[in-house]
Parts: sequence; structure tokens; C-alpha cells
Amino acid sequence: MNRVFPKSITDEIDMTFQYIDLANEIEIKVLNGEFHAGERLPSLRKIHNESNNSISTVHKAYMELERRGIVEAREKSGFFVSNILHHRQESPKLVECQKNPQKVRVAKLSHEMTRQVGKTHLTSVGLAIPANDILPLKQFSKIFKSISIEEMDHVFGYDRSMGSLELRRQIAKRTLGVSGRISSEEIIITNGCMDAISLCLRAVAKPGDIIGVETPTYNGFLQLIEQNNMFALELPTNLTEGVEVDKLEEILDSQQVKACLFNPSYQNPLGYVMPNEKREKLVRLMNHKNIPIIEDDVFGELHFEERRPSTLKSFDEKGLVLYCSSFSKTLAPGLRVGWAIPGIFMEQVQELKSNLSLSGSKLNQYLIVQFLKNDSYERQLRFVRNELKKQMSDLIMAVVRYFPKDTRISNPGGGLNLWVQLNDKIDTIELHREALLENILVMPGVLCSVSGRYQNCIRLGCGNPVTRHFEKSIEILGQIIYDLM
Amino acid sequence: MNRVFPKSITDEIDMTFQYIDLANEIEIKVLNGEFHAGERLPSLRKIHNESNNSISTVHKAYMELERRGIVEAREKSGFFVSNILHHRQESPKLVECQKNPQKVRVAKLSHEMTRQVGKTHLTSVGLAIPANDILPLKQFSKIFKSISIEEMDHVFGYDRSMGSLELRRQIAKRTLGVSGRISSEEIIITNGCMDAISLCLRAVAKPGDIIGVETPTYNGFLQLIEQNNMFALELPTNLTEGVEVDKLEEILDSQQVKACLFNPSYQNPLGYVMPNEKREKLVRLMNHKNIPIIEDDVFGELHFEERRPSTLKSFDEKGLVLYCSSFSKTLAPGLRVGWAIPGIFMEQVQELKSNLSLSGSKLNQYLIVQFLKNDSYERQLRFVRNELKKQMSDLIMAVVRYFPKDTRISNPGGGLNLWVQLNDKIDTIELHREALLENILVMPGVLCSVSGRYQNCIRLGCGNPVTRHFEKSIEILGQIIYDLM
Repeated sequence: MNRVFPKSITDEIDMTFQYIDLANEIEIKVLNGEFHAGERLPSLRKIHNESNNSISTVHKAYMELERRGIVEAREKSGFFVSNILHHRQESPKLVECQKNPQKVRVAKLSHEMTRQVGKTHLTSVGLAIPANDILPLKQFSKIFKSISIEEMDHVFGYDRSMGSLELRRQIAKRTLGVSGRISSEEIIITNGCMDAISLCLRAVAKPGDIIGVETPTYNGFLQLIEQNNMFALELPTNLTEGVEVDKLEEILDSQQVKACLFNPSYQNPLGYVMPNEKREKLVRLMNHKNIPIIEDDVFGELHFEERRPSTLKSFDEKGLVLYCSSFSKTLAPGLRVGWAIPGIFMEQVQELKSNLSLSGSKLNQYLIVQFLKNDSYERQLRFVRNELKKQMSDLIMAVVRYFPKDTRISNPGGGLNLWVQLNDKIDTIELHREALLENILVMPGVLCSVSGRYQNCIRLGCGNPVTRHFEKSIEILGQIIYDLM
Repeated sequence: MNRVFPKSITDEIDMTFQYIDLANEIEIKVLNGEFHAGERLPSLRKIHNESNNSISTVHKAYMELERRGIVEAREKSGFFVSNILHHRQESPKLVECQKNPQKVRVAKLSHEMTRQVGKTHLTSVGLAIPANDILPLKQFSKIFKSISIEEMDHVFGYDRSMGSLELRRQIAKRTLGVSGRISSEEIIITNGCMDAISLCLRAVAKPGDIIGVETPTYNGFLQLIEQNNMFALELPTNLTEGVEVDKLEEILDSQQVKACLFNPSYQNPLGYVMPNEKREKLVRLMNHKNIPIIEDDVFGELHFEERRPSTLKSFDEKGLVLYCSSFSKTLAPGLRVGWAIPGIFMEQVQELKSNLSLSGSKLNQYLIVQFLKNDSYERQLRFVRNELKKQMSDLIMAVVRYFPKDTRISNPGGGLNLWVQLNDKIDTIELHREALLENILVMPGVLCSVSGRYQNCIRLGCGNPVTRHFEKSIEILGQIIYDLM
């Protein structure tokens, strides 16, 4: 349990540890499902031929993987993916949906969680927050130093209620090919993505209304529904593709659903991507029924694969999709700059924003504009994606290593969240409280449900590099889980 | 109508214009009510003896004031305050209160107003916004340039839900002697004062509840009440001292008032200060009835007299006063940093904040902290107060000069707002729209009422220096009013 856990394969490496590097590379492939449990791994010679590694290095790598419990050597047959891993790798099982809309009661516990944010002694393994290491602090520092007095003049007054025109133009430019042709006039700037979703929700629904959500769903959605005295209806959700459109259609025939809150790209907490055909079918259904969808696309840019997923907005023909996103996961959580593309509800969203908060921060919008203008955003996105992908692999490896064998984990294609299903006997609220005593913050699964489900699940976040200290926290967490069983 | 309107008495002056300077000084005293209509002004010799002005300068000053229509020369008796002015100076008359709580419908029109904010071609004479000229842009510019990479590290992540501890400490230090002993743990940082009021309102009341307000009241209060589907009850309000406590007591016996929204210091829109005895009586009554007061103190620091008014909070013995303020009127509207001291409702406010918006902007809080730390805040406050006092005098002078004679104006003791009551025949929504065609923004009085009252009133703001261009706008406004009559 004390061995060094190499951070990632692209770290600066001593040639002596080349085999560690190779072992990590193979481990990632296994964890990503490129090799299945029981499957035979490439021979020493094959890897030697296809890479620059000596036979001896490849052999040492396999020995290392065997030591980690990820591969098994079978006499005269070579190396195979371990069966234990297979068990661990399966997706979490989920239960059936309740039929009735529920009053939401997650605010207290959610608040208990978020009030921990920013406490320095705490290791947050449960929040979807990118660490400072992957944020472009140096570039922002340069931008600060370059602000002229004339520019200050534009930065310190109240803002117009739509937000900075320049920022809206930059966003409009970037949405091309993702959400169809969006003009700057269709975009409204908000205080982060949560604020965008909050305004959109209040624009389309009122207290007492029923809001459809995925299950499990993002706890933030439930918090907003609760604070607005609305009801949540959990919709049957496929673990790897999102909400079941056919079942949704039946439900809409019997329930007065006022709007839906969906997070189709790297869903929080499951991490799946809804396939395009399904997106199209979903939006067509909702357009037909005239029911607005609030689309949370905050993780859309954080794809581990080469291309970003599309959006529900791009299939929207009636302006009924209210698209929401922010720069909090890619550039700067602390700046609180997000936006909404509210379709036909623009007027209502704008009115709510100007009535509730007057305006957003001009300075923060200005800083983001400067960043987008100097073309380093694309580079930053590539960097964040790479880092998160590595960190997610490292996180999965650590969970596999330290959690009990009956643990099941999701297979996120991007984003920040990993869903972990523990033994049925585990109450993760208890786990959360025990872990907090050790200064470790996890997110109990009940926060993602309106009916007290997922009590044996937790959400983990890959925003932090899996340092030795972080890995230690996962190990301690594993210990607590064993103790609770 | 083409003469030069000198900006203020402390502008850099050519000795040739010393008489203009003196005339302005006397005009301000007259407008502040130090001399009443028909009252004899000090003799030339008296002023000469008590100031450094020659008899000739004093004489020229009186001639100038006569030309302005502010004084009249009476043969062999000297100079007297003009009667016309007396008429103009009276406080606006107000009508009786309605007895029943009302559904609020100001959001649409309010939004029509605020959506104009930030449009550069517009002269806003109606909004309570300090101009950039009086904001400490240079000092903030220095702060930007001094942020180290290490500090950047603290500035870019998500914030804790209470907000920056250092900022809360700075605020706690400053509230000493104003709101009693307030510790940093009793303070929560918000996105400006409106956000603070919004959170506090949602913490103490729910949809359908009745909220008591002054009349006329701050349109922002009514917007929040409307957006939260609550009802507003206008309380009998004395024009120079605020809500009538005895009448309030009667009302509370018959109406289920859930909470009250008060702005006792330089009330928006009337500008009055509630006297201390009245504050004490008011808070005692509300404490006794166990009804929370949300106190908006955003103008508290903007006193034209030497000392700032006290707060309702300082008389609160039960933690039922939820105090709200911000740095938007004194330092930087664009940073959106405010705070609440919610008394016994801290837990609810904190929960709402963390559930609705996750956190505020760390960067903006950091910038304010740097400003407060280097002790220039006191200097900035003195500067803002002086400038606003001058600008308010200039604004009043301009209104007196260009508006019809039956116009009545309030006598603000601080803050940013001037309440102007026009002839009964004037519909100020019409005025607002006509003015907008001339790129002038005024605020129609109906926005300050739930019962369509004050249709012949407008609110003006003294945030801008009365430049020649600004004065021209007041002149045009006066013309439109004449045309409407």
C-alpha cells in the first residue's frame, strides 16, 4: 500500500521507470475497456515491435500490472486481464423509477456539502471542481497587468442586462457548428451555469410545477427545484445513453410535466453521453409536446475522445431548448461567468435577470473576453481535456485498487464525475460523515435523487491530480467502506 | 438658456470667476433650505467681512443669482430669496395608502428601464448609479498590477459559501459602532446588495406571503416581491421620516405581514433619513411582533452631513433585522460585491446562497479586500460623499431652472436619489418614453408603487456630474414636460 503511485504517463520520467510508464499506459487501456476481463493482452514481442520498449521493459511492465492486480500471468499462454477488474468495472446497477412527482428535500445536505468548499485542510474527492493546476492562472495574471486605465473605465460600472456584447460575440462564434447558428442577441450572460439554469427554470415554470429530471441527476438541479417549490419527476434513465425517450413519451401523456432539466453530455453524476439519434428523437418529442428543455452543457467541452458531443439545442426547431453553460470548468470557477441561450424565452430570462440581480460582473466578463480574444482558449481546452482524462484514469485506478471488490463504477466519456456504487449495506451519508472526520469530502448518492435512492452510491470528481496525498485519501475512504461493511 | 453652468464650487477656478463660485455657494445654501423663500440674505458687507471676497465680488454674485431667478433685489432693502423658488422647493405631496396587499406588476417596466443601462449614447438622469468619475479606478488598476501568481492561486477557484473570510473581517471591523458588535461569522457575502436582499427575502417569506414596504418604495423591492410571487402592502410613510410606526402597529393587528423591506437611510426614492427615535420604536414593535425587517442600507455611507445615520440593525435585540449593503455605490458597481447580516436567519440565507449560485466571485472579493486593507476606503468615501453632495445640488439647481414652476422636489440628506413631483396632468410613463427618444433615461414614479400611484412623479439620480451635456438633458426634459401639459 506504500508504493509510489506514478501520477501520469506524461510526467517527466527517468528512463529507469520506463516500464512504469508502459504499465500505466496499458492500465488505462484496460480501464477504458479496450481490453476486457479475461482477454489476452498483446505478447511481449508484439509490444516490443510496435513500440520503442525493450522486451525486458515490457516484461517488467506486465509484472508491475500483475502486482497491481490488473493482469494475471497464465503459464505458457501469456498475460490476461484479471477477472477481479471485470467485476469492478461494471456499470452501477440502478433501480426502477417512481411514478409520481416528488417534493425535493436535498437542500440541507447539499448545503452541508458545499459549505465545505474552499476549506484548505480538506481533500475534496467528491466535487466536480477543476483544480487550480489546470487553470490558466499565468495568462490571467498577464491580462491583469495589461488592463489600461481606459479599459478600467469600461469595467467598473453596472453592466447591461444581456451582458457584455463582446463576450456574447465570442460565445456566438464558438457555438457555430455545435448549436447551429446562434447570434450574440440570442445569448445572455449569467453568474455561472447554475445561475443560468436558475433563471431559465424560473422563466419556464412556477412554484408547484412538475419538472422532469434524469435519475440519478445533478444535485444542483434538485436544489433549484426545491428552492423554487416545484416538484421533481425522475424519468427512466439508461445508464449509458440517458433518458429513455419512449418511456418519457408515455409519462408525458399522463403527467403534466412543465419542463425538463437534462445534462446530456458527460452527465452529472453518471458521465454518459447521449447519442445523437437519441438527442434528435428526444428534442423532436419535446418540441412536439411544446415542453421546454433546459440543457446543461457545462461539461460539453471536456471530452476525452477527439470530438465534442453535439447539443440538444442543435436539434431544436421551436426555440424550446434553453441552453446553459459556463467557463467555470475550463477557465475559472472563481470568475462566475456563464451564459444561457434561452430560445423563445429570452425576454423572460432577461427580465428575471434584470429584476433579480441588476447585472453581472463587468470585470469578470472582460477578463474572459481578453482570454478568448488572444486565441489561447483552444490550447487551454486541449490542456484541460488531457489533464482531466489522465486524472480520471488515475482516479479510477485508485478506486479499483482500494475499494472493495463488489464496487461498481461508471465509465465516463468526459467531464469531471465518476459514479461509484458500493455494497448495498453501505449508507453513504454515514460514509460521508466518517470521511469528513478524516478531512475527506465525498458526495453521497442520495443527493442525486428525490426518493432517497442511491444510498449506497457516491459521486467522485476527477478535478484534482491524483497525488500521493489524494491517493491516500482514496485509500482511507476504502478503509472506511470496509469498516462500514 | 445657453449660459455656462459652472460644475461646482470646488472646481479649479479662474479668479475672474470667483463671483460665480460665491453665487454657487449661496445657491446651494438656499436650495438646502438654509434660507427660506422671502428671507433676507446677508448684506454685501457682512459677506465681505466674513469671507475673503471683495464687496464688488459679492455684488456680482448677487447679480448672478438674480439672473438665475434665485434672489430678488428689493430697493434699499437688499437681496431676498425668490418666492418662485419656495414654490419649487416644497416636498412632493403624497396620497393616502391602500388598505390591501397588492399583486405587484412592475417587472416589465423595470426591465424596460434596466435594459437601457450601459448603453453609451444614453444620458441616464434616472438611475442611482455613481459615475466612473467618482470611482477609484486608478487604485484598482494598481491592485490589478500587484496581484502575484501565488495570490492568483487563491482567486480563481470556487469560493466558500459564506464568502471570503478576510472580506468578512474587514466588513465586521467597519460595522463597529454602526450595527453593534458584528463578527465575521454573522456576515455572508453576496453578488451585490440586490442579491443580498433577494436571498434574505426568500429566507423569511414564501410565495403568497405579504411583504410590507414604504410608499413610494424602491422599485427593486417590488421587483423581488413580484418575481417571488409575494404580495406587497404599502405602509403609510411620512415623507421626511419614513414609515409611520403607530399606523404600522394598527395594520399589523389586522394583516398577516410576513416581513418588511425598509430603506431607512436616504431612502430610495425619497432620500429621507428615519430619525433614531423612530428607528428604535420601529424595531421594538417589529421585534415584539416577531416580524423580520430586511434593512437596505446601501446608501448609508453616502451622507451629505458629517455623520452617517445609524441602522435598524443596531436596535435589533432578537436578530430579526436582516441587514443588507454593498460596495456598488461607493467603490465599484461592476464588481457586484455586497453582503448580508441576516441575524437568526443566517443558516437559511447561507443554504439558499449555496443552493442557488454555489458561490460568489473570489476575484472580486479579493479586489475589495485589497482596497479596504490599504486604508484608502475612508478617503474614497469622503470623496464620493463630497462629489455626490455637489452633484445633488447641481441636479436640484438644474431641475429648478428648467422644470415648470409647479414642480415639487424632495430634499435628500444623502444618497443618490431625487424625487420629483410634476403637475397632476403629467403621465411620467409617457414622459419616460418621450425622453427615451431623445436618449434621456428617467424613472417613472409608478415603478415605486404597487397601485399605479405616482404617475406624475419621476426619480432622478445624482450619480453623474452635471456637465453641460447633462444639464442640456434636464433642459430637454423640462421642454417635454411643458409640451405634455
